[in-house]
Amino acid sequence: MDNKKNRAVVRVPGTSANCGPGFDCLGLATTIYNYLDLTLLRGSKVIVEATGEGSENIPRGKKNLAWQAVKRFLQEIGRADEFKGAIIRSKNNVPVSRGLGSSSTAIVGGLVAANEILGAPLNRQELLKIATELEGHPDNVAPALFGGFTVSVMDNGEVQTFSFLPRIRLKLIVAVPDFELSTRLARKVLPKNVSMRDAVFNISRASMLISALVEGREDLLPLAFDDAIHQPYRKKLVPGMSEVFTAAKSAGALGAAISGAGSCLIAFTTTRSGLENKIAAAMVEEFKAHDVKSKSLILDLDRRGAKIIKR
Amino acid sequence: MDNKKNRAVVRVPGTSANCGPGFDCLGLATTIYNYLDLTLLRGSKVIVEATGEGSENIPRGKKNLAWQAVKRFLQEIGRADEFKGAIIRSKNNVPVSRGLGSSSTAIVGGLVAANEILGAPLNRQELLKIATELEGHPDNVAPALFGGFTVSVMDNGEVQTFSFLPRIRLKLIVAVPDFELSTRLARKVLPKNVSMRDAVFNISRASMLISALVEGREDLLPLAFDDAIHQPYRKKLVPGMSEVFTAAKSAGALGAAISGAGSCLIAFTTTRSGLENKIAAAMVEEFKAHDVKSKSLILDLDRRGAKIIKR
Repeated sequence: MDNKKNRAVVRVPGTSANCGPGFDCLGLATTIYNYLDLTLLRGSKVIVEATGEGSENIPRGKKNLAWQAVKRFLQEIGRADEFKGAIIRSKNNVPVSRGLGSSSTAIVGGLVAANEILGAPLNRQELLKIATELEGHPDNVAPALFGGFTVSVMDNGEVQTFSFLPRIRLKLIVAVPDFELSTRLARKVLPKNVSMRDAVFNISRASMLISALVEGREDLLPLAFDDAIHQPYRKKLVPGMSEVFTAAKSAGALGAAISGAGSCLIAFTTTRSGLENKIAAAMVEEFKAHDVKSKSLILDLDRRGAKIIKR
Repeated sequence: MDNKKNRAVVRVPGTSANCGPGFDCLGLATTIYNYLDLTLLRGSKVIVEATGEGSENIPRGKKNLAWQAVKRFLQEIGRADEFKGAIIRSKNNVPVSRGLGSSSTAIVGGLVAANEILGAPLNRQELLKIATELEGHPDNVAPALFGGFTVSVMDNGEVQTFSFLPRIRLKLIVAVPDFELSTRLARKVLPKNVSMRDAVFNISRASMLISALVEGREDLLPLAFDDAIHQPYRKKLVPGMSEVFTAAKSAGALGAAISGAGSCLIAFTTTRSGLENKIAAAMVEEFKAHDVKSKSLILDLDRRGAKIIKR
């Protein structure tokens, strides 16, 4: 059988979940990409080649996350007996374990590539369902699949996602510290309960954030990125967090938040503000004042989500 | 001085706060109206005449809520010495103490009428601030002032509101039980803390509700009206609440919620569904099965907010 026919290359955006108030439900896709080159094999061999961010630690065999996703997909469509292995080549730009959705890129990349190779038996909503099961929550896989901003609701284990492009052209400034943060640890520091007042704080701000983005009301954004239910507890895991937020805002950012479960911090401005470099410098500088070495990324919103780039 | 010059008549919509997941921040204005006819007086007499809903219990003297609002407005603009009294005539259609914002109509009506008489020294945002202080929370006064749907955020005691008209033409079906429910009692049954899971439940649904309404995505609404942080606790105050919600949905409603702090329940459908009468009948019938006598109101969204109708 011709391997060419069984090959697809997919580009998957890095993502930033939560966006401040939208804990476990909001996410956005950014213009930093991982590339996944998948060839399905009849034989049961799994060959993994990886270059770029975190490539030294990516599992090479059947524990590889992209393969796990491919296998799950093949089972779902009833063709797991037909394709028992794969060649997976990845080229990664998304920093690992920093809250930019690197694991979601592997899951979504594997699913979208395998789906493409086999003639798209599943639609994106069905892929989202599998991706959410594999990742455990929808807030990174949803924007990785759909692009733009996403709102995801879990209902009895089923996920429903709405994706939209804001009427404000955003610039995203990400400060990437030189330390990793495991999502497990970042979840462990969270309380089981929050005060009613803090819940309302987030409900109102998430609602305002969506309103402001969808309707293009930049004036309403400065209030809308704040959070009371997860960031205060994660502060201790990211030295200087609050101060970096303040530095970003002082440099003109509309708001700032932890990216996913951290360690990255993300600040928001508009493309036309021209303030992105100033904000980036202020964030890195403030991290430095707290003995954290970091680099900055200046990104746009990805508008496409996972995209087939070779077939 | 000519009394005519010191008179204005304002029409103020009844409102429904919370809309399910948007506890203490979302609200909407409906096409049921109270009318307030205000004449400012130099002398310190306050004359109140009221007809319609709850008119027998409206305080006649200086404790009258509309007068309290007028007085507060006059103090704010530094003219409290000039006008020490008023004639207030109100014609009320909004049921009292049922969660349809009747007290907000008095506050907003008093403020908007007095502001109009004195040449509009304050804008609506400034009136909102005073109204929120008087009412204690913004979720009814905001839609009463602005109309449509409103998202309100409290930030260090300051209120910020965004008002929008959904791209879906909604029909609102309100079941009005024959018993009153005090907001104080309805607040007393709420817990101080909620689980993180329930907070996320509401954050995601409030975000989805705004998205669906603003973007006209009717398909996303059925998930979006559910709540986990206030309605479950208020169930015991409104016999049959959950069952009336189920009955409304079985009759075709997109969702249902307590209106404000109750006792009214509100269900949502579209104008083009033609299901409003069926839903209304189902709700009243189900209330009856729980020994609650109720009447139904079939309303539209008010798009204007408080409106001067005579000057």
